[in-house]
Amino acid sequence: MAIRRKKRLDISQYVEGILQQDRVRLSQAITLVESTLEEDRSLARQLIERLLPYTGKAVRIGITGVPGVGKSTFIEALGQYIAQQGKKLAVLAVDPSSQRSRGSIMGDKTRMELLAANQNAYIRPSPAGTSLGGVASRTRETMLLCEAAGFEVIFIETVGVGQSETVVHGMVDFFLLLMLAGAGDELQGIKKGIMEMADVVAITKADGDNQQKAAVAKAEYQSAFHLFPPAANGWFPKVVTCSALHNEGIEHIWSLTNEYIEHTQQNKYFDERRKEQNLRWMYETIRQTLEEQFFHHKEVIKKLPQVAQQISEGTLPPLTGAQLLLDLAKK
Amino acid sequence: MAIRRKKRLDISQYVEGILQQDRVRLSQAITLVESTLEEDRSLARQLIERLLPYTGKAVRIGITGVPGVGKSTFIEALGQYIAQQGKKLAVLAVDPSSQRSRGSIMGDKTRMELLAANQNAYIRPSPAGTSLGGVASRTRETMLLCEAAGFEVIFIETVGVGQSETVVHGMVDFFLLLMLAGAGDELQGIKKGIMEMADVVAITKADGDNQQKAAVAKAEYQSAFHLFPPAANGWFPKVVTCSALHNEGIEHIWSLTNEYIEHTQQNKYFDERRKEQNLRWMYETIRQTLEEQFFHHKEVIKKLPQVAQQISEGTLPPLTGAQLLLDLAKK
Repeated sequence: MAIRRKKRLDISQYVEGILQQDRVRLSQAITLVESTLEEDRSLARQLIERLLPYTGKAVRIGITGVPGVGKSTFIEALGQYIAQQGKKLAVLAVDPSSQRSRGSIMGDKTRMELLAANQNAYIRPSPAGTSLGGVASRTRETMLLCEAAGFEVIFIETVGVGQSETVVHGMVDFFLLLMLAGAGDELQGIKKGIMEMADVVAITKADGDNQQKAAVAKAEYQSAFHLFPPAANGWFPKVVTCSALHNEGIEHIWSLTNEYIEHTQQNKYFDERRKEQNLRWMYETIRQTLEEQFFHHKEVIKKLPQVAQQISEGTLPPLTGAQLLLDLAKK
Repeated sequence: MAIRRKKRLDISQYVEGILQQDRVRLSQAITLVESTLEEDRSLARQLIERLLPYTGKAVRIGITGVPGVGKSTFIEALGQYIAQQGKKLAVLAVDPSSQRSRGSIMGDKTRMELLAANQNAYIRPSPAGTSLGGVASRTRETMLLCEAAGFEVIFIETVGVGQSETVVHGMVDFFLLLMLAGAGDELQGIKKGIMEMADVVAITKADGDNQQKAAVAKAEYQSAFHLFPPAANGWFPKVVTCSALHNEGIEHIWSLTNEYIEHTQQNKYFDERRKEQNLRWMYETIRQTLEEQFFHHKEVIKKLPQVAQQISEGTLPPLTGAQLLLDLAKK
């Protein structure tokens, strides 16, 4: 019998530990959720099902911004403010972009030392992911575990322009876009897709020489929003300036966040969106499971190395190889 | 019988038309490849299989850069140069980011008017995609159609920082990264993943007041590359400056591209990479097909609306709903 590197816990141990807000158990459960081993995945799903009734009570906030916008500093400042209000905050990161280096460029604990030391905060580094789908489902499950463990505010941060933001938008209640002053009109056009997701835009680093530029940028973004069609949530996106360095504007952003949540809870958009997100979650689960089943199929495991070899050698066209394996998996 | 909106062509009509370099047929075939209808997908795959022996002879070039870097202007300048050498060039775009607005922000024909009017050039706007996987497989298939239609150089452009670049890197021979001068060190750290993919980095807009900044940026990027581990292709990434406006440095970039291709053909990396890409293509095809089969399954089609309804109403947990459908599809 093979010696296991780590003893797997019993599902009730995870459930009880998490419901008792035990951070060691929470971290172990997140590690389970991040595992790609088939038996871990199955246990992880059971765990999520068991904890589902205890989730959903947190405010879920997506935070994004281009590199250099000062995301870590901002998150630390806002996070500290929230934690000081007595709220329990979990900070998660989605970062599927750095595939080749496999290194996580975000979510390092060392990055936000003050916040990491705050007993009301829990920072979880980003898992190295191979597919955005995989990263997304793990992030969602991690969020749910944190909610069951009593966290009341969840930050999910992403980097840059693109697909991750859409994925995160699909699992949060509120979307905060951080922007740099002086990036100008050039950026506005291209970022339309992400701009449209934003409920609040915060112009960062509005301090020192930068204050004037930040005020101009604020006015620009405000007028840009007037060109967009009204959002389904009946909320007109707010543009603000802030300085994480001088702790200015941070409180205002948190009060806007709460205003937004109240507004959407009153007009029922909040619940509608969560329902929609549940549907999306179902689709994602189906895709993930189909893949897992396929690549764990006995015949596929047996034949895959040979097919891969022939495709590499150029003796088998990729589409034919794919079809061959797909036929095997049907047996 | 339902009246078809458009008559579908016979597969031989596509094949013959494309091999005769008929652009109308090529465009029709690309539209077929972009279709998500099951019967179109099946015909598209057959078409690709039939044309595969006529593909692979083009130089495949990925071009990326942050918003505002001047990508269109650059592509137009480089494209014009290549077309004037008598080479046939196809420009394709990958843009899965703008999901909500469904608008294509790239690849508009109007964007590159001069190039579009050049008889050696073919510009295809980006399809509106729902998943990066879908966009990727369509882009790859479009590239193969263009190759079969006699195009000798293929540009695949992407926008921004993230997942799309990794996908495109997985289907091209050469990766060109456009950078703005003055973006500074802040960007360098975060862009490591994409920097690592670059075979040539071109600092754009190196004209007028910007020349000095561009030279500084060039030196900075050059020294940044010295910190990276040597690439598997045995090529040390080159950093250059250029001005598409004054048509400066464009010729040099094209000669570096050819140098790179020769270099990697000699050390066999070129073929190795294409083989690896074929393998990746097989995996992508499997994923796409699994999904298509599932959502076209009779029982799934029948039950899906009810399951979706219950999940929306909150009476069925998403994971349970997913499992229910997955079980049905197995029957």
